[in-house]
Amino acid sequence: MAKVKIFVTLKDDVLDPQGKTVKFALDKMGYRDIDTVRIGKYIEIETRGSGGKELKKEIDEICDKLLANPNIEKYTFSIE
Amino acid sequence: MAKVKIFVTLKDDVLDPQGKTVKFALDKMGYRDIDTVRIGKYIEIETRGSGGKELKKEIDEICDKLLANPNIEKYTFSIE
Repeated sequence: MAKVKIFVTLKDDVLDPQGKTVKFALDKMGYRDIDTVRIGKYIEIETRGSGGKELKKEIDEICDKLLANPNIEKYTFSIE
Repeated sequence: MAKVKIFVTLKDDVLDPQGKTVKFALDKMGYRDIDTVRIGKYIEIETRGSGGKELKKEIDEICDKLLANPNIEKYTFSIE
């Protein structure tokens, strides 16, 4: 059994209105030393098979096809 | 400057319909060795101050008050 942790974030040059809203709220709440906030998705997948190259390829496919929008998002993942 | 990575996930005993939907889609797409999928939020914060105990306390506060719903969500974070 392998556990995969996937992080999907907006590309650096894509505006993040949700992050901006949180930053604004934090300012209002008095947290003035926060510089930027960016919000993404965190996905945990447990697989029945074990890790290895095959799984890495499969997760890349899953991210490209379903979890991330390659036009505006990038992703990284780790397999444990 | 410190970079904080925050992971907000549903507590283990809380149902995750979004994760279930992704699991179902992956089944349909032919990825049959996926066991469970759970979806959470990933938040990156950059601060002007440096790290340390003070920042850790501040991030705990921010998570409790704004980023996570303590009734159904848990969070972890790392400071770099």
